[in-house]
Amino acid sequence: MSRRQITGFSNPTVKFMRSLREKKHRKREGKFLAEGLRLLTDARETGHVPELLALATGRDSHPLIDALEQAVEAAGGEVLEMEPALLAKVTGKDNPQAVAGVFAEFGTSLTALDRSSADIWLVAQALRDPGNLGTMLRTGDAIGAGGLILIDDCADPFSVEAVRASMGAVFTQRLARASWDEFEGWLRGGDGQLVAASLREAVPYRGAPYTAPCFVMVGNESQGLPESYEAACDLRVTMPMRGRADSLNAAVAAAVLGYEVLASLDG
Amino acid sequence: MSRRQITGFSNPTVKFMRSLREKKHRKREGKFLAEGLRLLTDARETGHVPELLALATGRDSHPLIDALEQAVEAAGGEVLEMEPALLAKVTGKDNPQAVAGVFAEFGTSLTALDRSSADIWLVAQALRDPGNLGTMLRTGDAIGAGGLILIDDCADPFSVEAVRASMGAVFTQRLARASWDEFEGWLRGGDGQLVAASLREAVPYRGAPYTAPCFVMVGNESQGLPESYEAACDLRVTMPMRGRADSLNAAVAAAVLGYEVLASLDG
Repeated sequence: MSRRQITGFSNPTVKFMRSLREKKHRKREGKFLAEGLRLLTDARETGHVPELLALATGRDSHPLIDALEQAVEAAGGEVLEMEPALLAKVTGKDNPQAVAGVFAEFGTSLTALDRSSADIWLVAQALRDPGNLGTMLRTGDAIGAGGLILIDDCADPFSVEAVRASMGAVFTQRLARASWDEFEGWLRGGDGQLVAASLREAVPYRGAPYTAPCFVMVGNESQGLPESYEAACDLRVTMPMRGRADSLNAAVAAAVLGYEVLASLDG
Repeated sequence: MSRRQITGFSNPTVKFMRSLREKKHRKREGKFLAEGLRLLTDARETGHVPELLALATGRDSHPLIDALEQAVEAAGGEVLEMEPALLAKVTGKDNPQAVAGVFAEFGTSLTALDRSSADIWLVAQALRDPGNLGTMLRTGDAIGAGGLILIDDCADPFSVEAVRASMGAVFTQRLARASWDEFEGWLRGGDGQLVAASLREAVPYRGAPYTAPCFVMVGNESQGLPESYEAACDLRVTMPMRGRADSLNAAVAAAVLGYEVLASLDG
């Protein structure tokens, strides 16, 4: 196979890949980075082949790396080799993986979502931590959610941190971005129960009357959900808070609630 | 009140505080950093007063900051003032909080834990991500756990990232560190059910026969629990995995399982 060897840090392809660690460059190029054999294999197996595949020189041979290379070349993409130290600079990780890929970003239009395709959807409002977004994607995969809807000004789900935390779920969960007004308009144009954890006029989260398709929403890490958004929910639930704190980590709240909804709808 | 003004980045106190961002310095000094008015107020209200309190100059006055200052001075500690930019260097956060404190580390001896003081305990095995550890502390507070037991080589619960993610729970949850052998010996010296999520010979996590005191254990982010540790559990449970992934984020798994145990023991 033809593999271009990349040696210098000033190489334009290295600079391009590295630039994708920044949101403005991802936005301009419409592309993002993912790293690691497991993640890239998940991507391949779900029909997502990188346009550009970077392999570390001196890596152990592996049938899954061979499969990736073949998929990329069959799709007309490019395969590069570079020193592990250079690949580490690209991905910004101390402990570099042997492979990284550049993918085209997916469409994130709300109107392209088919709400009837899943019983549960996760909704994040102004979530600022890309690790939390990635973890929500991973949880969404586990509970059989259809995808993640990002409301207002959220972190970028295509950031290296979010992609890494998603453990591949960024390739399998649907993603949509919308303003609150757009989301509310879309939601009310069809079936859908909007649920959030709340301290106001709420019922216990265990045994609450969840219905599909159920949209489980969590708010910003420090502010929580705006009061008007909570008021717009069809169901407000509380989770026990036995200690001093009055809230959970956002990704944890989404998971505890998401698993409860799953058990309720399955039961 | 007498407040020492600190102006230079080369000031020994600034260097000392900044050094506590590194584990080796925390270990040598037996001290750690916490930042933010809410966190430091939680600490104060639970009897933890910093030895050294750093305030940003030009901050808005606040009765909770006054209360902190008074508590520190009453305890014979020191209050410093420094430019916000300097305080940001100390805590390593772009968006600096107006207060930071230096605390003495707590004892983390397993034998000092009173297992009968709570129905639930969380156990982390070789957890490498300080954010996950902090999130587990935060979840532990929410579910009324007694504390967090760290097995094998875990991230440092006194790191700035873990303390931040704990949202103050590092001050309210008990912490213990032990090897697996020490932990197993201690556990079997009294009552206690050891529970872990597992794919081997496991029962569904909903409705499983949990008993107090229940020790909920999660394993390393990439390897999971060693097989022999799983085998030593009294109860192995599975959570639904409807997608491609076969595991959850460690802090998420602890929370979903922890809330289930709480509901079961309360029910």
